[in-house]
Amino acid sequence: MKKVINNPENVVREMLEGMTLAYPEQVRNLEDTTVLVRKDAPVAGKVAIVSGGGSGHEPAHAGYIGRGMLDAAVAGEMFTSPTPDQVIEAIRAVDSGQGVFLVIKNYTGDVMNFEMAREMAEAEGISVEQVVVNDDVAVEDSSFTTGRRGIAGTVFVHKIAGAKAAAGGSLKEVKEAAEKVVANTRSMGVALSPCTIPGAGKPNFQLEDDEMEVGIGIHGEPGTKREKIAPADDIAEELLQKVLEDSVDFDKSEVAVMVNGLGATPESELFIVNRYVHSKLREKGINVTHTFVGEYMTSLEMAGFSITLMKVDEEIKQLLDAEAAAPAFHR
Amino acid sequence: MKKVINNPENVVREMLEGMTLAYPEQVRNLEDTTVLVRKDAPVAGKVAIVSGGGSGHEPAHAGYIGRGMLDAAVAGEMFTSPTPDQVIEAIRAVDSGQGVFLVIKNYTGDVMNFEMAREMAEAEGISVEQVVVNDDVAVEDSSFTTGRRGIAGTVFVHKIAGAKAAAGGSLKEVKEAAEKVVANTRSMGVALSPCTIPGAGKPNFQLEDDEMEVGIGIHGEPGTKREKIAPADDIAEELLQKVLEDSVDFDKSEVAVMVNGLGATPESELFIVNRYVHSKLREKGINVTHTFVGEYMTSLEMAGFSITLMKVDEEIKQLLDAEAAAPAFHR
Repeated sequence: MKKVINNPENVVREMLEGMTLAYPEQVRNLEDTTVLVRKDAPVAGKVAIVSGGGSGHEPAHAGYIGRGMLDAAVAGEMFTSPTPDQVIEAIRAVDSGQGVFLVIKNYTGDVMNFEMAREMAEAEGISVEQVVVNDDVAVEDSSFTTGRRGIAGTVFVHKIAGAKAAAGGSLKEVKEAAEKVVANTRSMGVALSPCTIPGAGKPNFQLEDDEMEVGIGIHGEPGTKREKIAPADDIAEELLQKVLEDSVDFDKSEVAVMVNGLGATPESELFIVNRYVHSKLREKGINVTHTFVGEYMTSLEMAGFSITLMKVDEEIKQLLDAEAAAPAFHR
Repeated sequence: MKKVINNPENVVREMLEGMTLAYPEQVRNLEDTTVLVRKDAPVAGKVAIVSGGGSGHEPAHAGYIGRGMLDAAVAGEMFTSPTPDQVIEAIRAVDSGQGVFLVIKNYTGDVMNFEMAREMAEAEGISVEQVVVNDDVAVEDSSFTTGRRGIAGTVFVHKIAGAKAAAGGSLKEVKEAAEKVVANTRSMGVALSPCTIPGAGKPNFQLEDDEMEVGIGIHGEPGTKREKIAPADDIAEELLQKVLEDSVDFDKSEVAVMVNGLGATPESELFIVNRYVHSKLREKGINVTHTFVGEYMTSLEMAGFSITLMKVDEEIKQLLDAEAAAPAFHR
């Protein structure tokens, strides 16, 4: 295991210190927590957006803290849900009285712990609503989830919920916008190599030199099948087909595309995938209005990528175009 | 070799297509070239900034095209200098009559080909100036270079030269600002794993499971020594020491820091390095004014990172803070 770390037990704490030092004008660390919040939180008169989850998916989620996106991100240990007492700290710190909206990826631990924090917050008189993101079309249940997993599409939820809140949307309106994103967003990923959790010391699965895992999760959870590695266009075609034939009717629609790197895949390769996605969607009469290529939701140093399509309407396009000023997301 | 590519011969062309499709409002591809330019080039009344070099370092250089940074980026084949006829196309396309400034990383091929293009452009009556970036303190000469190599510090040159040009600076003033950056910027990198050029099919060097290469170049050129892998703080200390004891007097100065990932290193690890760099500089009375953590100048899927320090003064700080709106760099 080759990692640029000190003691594996301190990885998350040291990472959060390094982040806070990197973005001192944008974020601050709530003392004695693994929570980063907007420097100026709570923002008066605005619904606050809180997300988080296990670490190892950077820049998710702390990289999305900023104007027009998140007010707080709660970091768990590597690939491990944050505890309710961490989540409640985030909620308390960012609530301005307008309520707090939780963006939760659909993993059993995250859903349980965020919902427990929600109940604690509500008992304190804070209004809280939530959405559970489940964009991954690959598998119905997995080792980490009941139902579909939340993966890179979560970043679209951050953007849209954040923009709606920044525009003065009420807690109910933010929730409606976020639910629209979840209902219209589908993703699927592929891995060419595994990754290693610092504390574990060995990779979370094994792939032969000529194999890839199709439908992989962002924690290395198994996908739908293991195949021989194929040309980029064939891999992209396979993922795109599964996304397109899922329950969202993308026919003749407008979409935002995200080609997300899982950690070790060069940006050049992500652009090659993007080229194929665009040409295929054009062929199908689907109009791409926005494109995002890069590392948005990673899985440590895993090689591979995911493709996300979000069907957009006028409201979503406007919210996607609205200002965002987070370290890892600018508009 | 596991790569998300089609035919290795088409990697650069397909990547450029994918980039152009990703950023249709920001860049366009000059027909029949490997040149991307600002969508609105030539920008009237402004000195144009052109950079480029071998591909495989994405987001460098096309990711830095945009307001306040580059007007054009010329892509060579993987780790191979672009030819003079490609560079001259870029120069012609972006010159608005105010002249063109070339930012060249110090590799023998790049310097030769950019200078040849410069002579051709001057023969056509275009004013051209240039700077050669050589921030890498690791080795004096290498397989790719006479003199020091240009690595991640190049991104600071893009930013400062671009900001100076956007502020209405003359060709001479842009050159002076860029030279100030080059004179005050030092970097050093380390690799934990090699990378594989698509056409080559095998890694460009070998490292044992417990080894790292200190002072690595961004094409896998050998560094100063091969060592047993060490804790993050020890690796960061080794690089930082070499950077600090080089010819720039950083004592009690103000600096901008860049912790740059080479491709496969998780962002969490880069933040752990950043934490150490900040604490060490504070200890030495060096004040960090700006911090950049992420993948700015990569080496395909190489694992590892580099540390860059740029000594800043009031002018450089102001230019660093000026607006920039490139896909891979926002202020």
